[in-house]
Amino acid sequence: MKVDGKPYRSIWLGSDGHSAEIIDQTRLPHDFVVARLESLDAAVTAIKTMQVRGAPLIGATAAYGLALALRDDPGDESLAAASARLAASRPTAVNLAWALRRMSEVLTPLPPPARADAAYAEAARIADEDVAINRAIGEHGLAVLEKAAAKAGGRRLNVLTHCNAGWLATVDYGTALAPIYLAHDQGLALHVWVDETRPRNQGAGLTAWELGRHGVPHTVIVDNAGGHLMQHGRVDLCIVGTDRVSRRGDVCNKIGTYLKALAAADNGVPFYVAAPSPSIDWGIDDGVAEIPIEERDGAEVTRIVGRDATGRQVAVEVVPPGTPAANYGFDVTPARLVTGLVTERGVAAASPDGLAALYPEHRRDGAG
Amino acid sequence: MKVDGKPYRSIWLGSDGHSAEIIDQTRLPHDFVVARLESLDAAVTAIKTMQVRGAPLIGATAAYGLALALRDDPGDESLAAASARLAASRPTAVNLAWALRRMSEVLTPLPPPARADAAYAEAARIADEDVAINRAIGEHGLAVLEKAAAKAGGRRLNVLTHCNAGWLATVDYGTALAPIYLAHDQGLALHVWVDETRPRNQGAGLTAWELGRHGVPHTVIVDNAGGHLMQHGRVDLCIVGTDRVSRRGDVCNKIGTYLKALAAADNGVPFYVAAPSPSIDWGIDDGVAEIPIEERDGAEVTRIVGRDATGRQVAVEVVPPGTPAANYGFDVTPARLVTGLVTERGVAAASPDGLAALYPEHRRDGAG
Repeated sequence: MKVDGKPYRSIWLGSDGHSAEIIDQTRLPHDFVVARLESLDAAVTAIKTMQVRGAPLIGATAAYGLALALRDDPGDESLAAASARLAASRPTAVNLAWALRRMSEVLTPLPPPARADAAYAEAARIADEDVAINRAIGEHGLAVLEKAAAKAGGRRLNVLTHCNAGWLATVDYGTALAPIYLAHDQGLALHVWVDETRPRNQGAGLTAWELGRHGVPHTVIVDNAGGHLMQHGRVDLCIVGTDRVSRRGDVCNKIGTYLKALAAADNGVPFYVAAPSPSIDWGIDDGVAEIPIEERDGAEVTRIVGRDATGRQVAVEVVPPGTPAANYGFDVTPARLVTGLVTERGVAAASPDGLAALYPEHRRDGAG
Repeated sequence: MKVDGKPYRSIWLGSDGHSAEIIDQTRLPHDFVVARLESLDAAVTAIKTMQVRGAPLIGATAAYGLALALRDDPGDESLAAASARLAASRPTAVNLAWALRRMSEVLTPLPPPARADAAYAEAARIADEDVAINRAIGEHGLAVLEKAAAKAGGRRLNVLTHCNAGWLATVDYGTALAPIYLAHDQGLALHVWVDETRPRNQGAGLTAWELGRHGVPHTVIVDNAGGHLMQHGRVDLCIVGTDRVSRRGDVCNKIGTYLKALAAADNGVPFYVAAPSPSIDWGIDDGVAEIPIEERDGAEVTRIVGRDATGRQVAVEVVPPGTPAANYGFDVTPARLVTGLVTERGVAAASPDGLAALYPEHRRDGAG
């Protein structure tokens, strides 16, 4: 996507030929800053501190992080240790484990001297494939939006999204926002309700920034507002991203997604999840019981970062001194509340059969 | 309730015998500042800018505002004009209209020279009655908490609340928090999950402050987190306040309440609403369709006020410059999602019959 006319991905190989460059997302929307990751340590820190975030981008960053580690030391121990550190950097997004497993399968059989080059090549493939996946999700999601627009009878379509599943959450295009960009570019009249998405405000900060740069009409609302809007017919459709989908279609995504899915179900509003196949965890059935939910520092709740009157980024405390806070990063929306999973192969029903129909190679009974 | 050992109400007659003194709630939790309202204008501004907020306290403040107006000019026109200005200061809380109607019924028949004194007397009665109502709600709610604690088998009870329905929202004791204070004082082990309650953060700012001052264990969470906690058995009971209850038991309360009620219903968690009778609007049936929802300045969403590192209160912007924001103050929770309405006369089912059984004088068919 373009920033001030210049095309960007959210991660790319630096001009030195080995570092990975990223857009530092902790500085957005206030400052647009490119950061250079020159070591495994830097990659781990970037993932932990959310300089990069979004399940697909975390996967790509981990792949480059492994390449950086192998450039220093391509031995078996180094490969295993780097994988383990990256895997532990954030526990919920399954793309991270998926990318590391894929890298390991390619790299382990190789003689150590060949590993670094192969790692960079595989990381680039993971990044390029993510772009292709998201383009396909955009096309399939566009059909969903066009159908909803037809139902809305030509009136401007109101879409609600939570968190940021845009191009900043992926290598390019985004997952949940990919169809929105495509629809907008094709002249379909739409408007996006953007949940601010506390505590890290990825909606207010990143989604609003992306949509604004691309010219898509949008309005930021607090996370509390979506139910009210749906009760009053102000939302035609919800679409969000995901960090992990279970085999039966339970959807783990940014904390608060479940509440919006409940409101959508209560008001007959379709609730779609953009789910690239690397985010599907075929080894898990019951998402609520089995997906580990990251707990982060309570200071992300009690301290809010913004831009003061001078344009400087500052943090302010919103609670009385010493107030305890808890900070759960994700929640799980049961499959029964999900209208459809928009994958790169098409829209699947959120059910074991729905997913297996599109991904027969993962059908458990092997009958696919 | 006490602040640093000194007993306070949230509004009281000033030592000059005519101004009303309040705790400026826009300065909490960072600064404890008493403000003096010396005119109708000051009272209207205090309500509009939320120096005072919470339906019961808004009602009491409006009563004192009317007394201040009549002190300046006790004529019929002044009475009507002051009532109209106060009534328009915030549209959703029905206590405001209730208090003004009650004042008008007392004052209109009086000769103008007698009105100011009578207005102060009636305002004091409204304030005292609010305190008595909240004490009674506390007692009835305590029984609910004790039953839940028995079910929890002696384990510490986890209660979730949204916004601030504590003593700061009323003249004293609070509505939803009244039973919590009573239970805590009687040694019942409980812990409160406090929704931060964006955009104005009355949970993070006011409820956390109140509970902390009183020593009630609590944890602040983002508004997004409650569904996840309920899915995992971490909430035994929800209790919130209300700004207006319809005849059939639909509950208008701070934006986001509806989302928590949906999650409670989805997970079998009891959802109670503390509803003093002045917040019941007997003239409305369908709360979703009929209760006017206040829309406030979008800047309350995009700009967050907090305490910087030097302890100074500053506002920070959390969105890209120029981002549009919408700000709905309240939503309506349909009666079907409400386990019970804790009133000063006892706990009512959220239904026309449930309310009419406790308030037979308002039964529509007159059969009560």
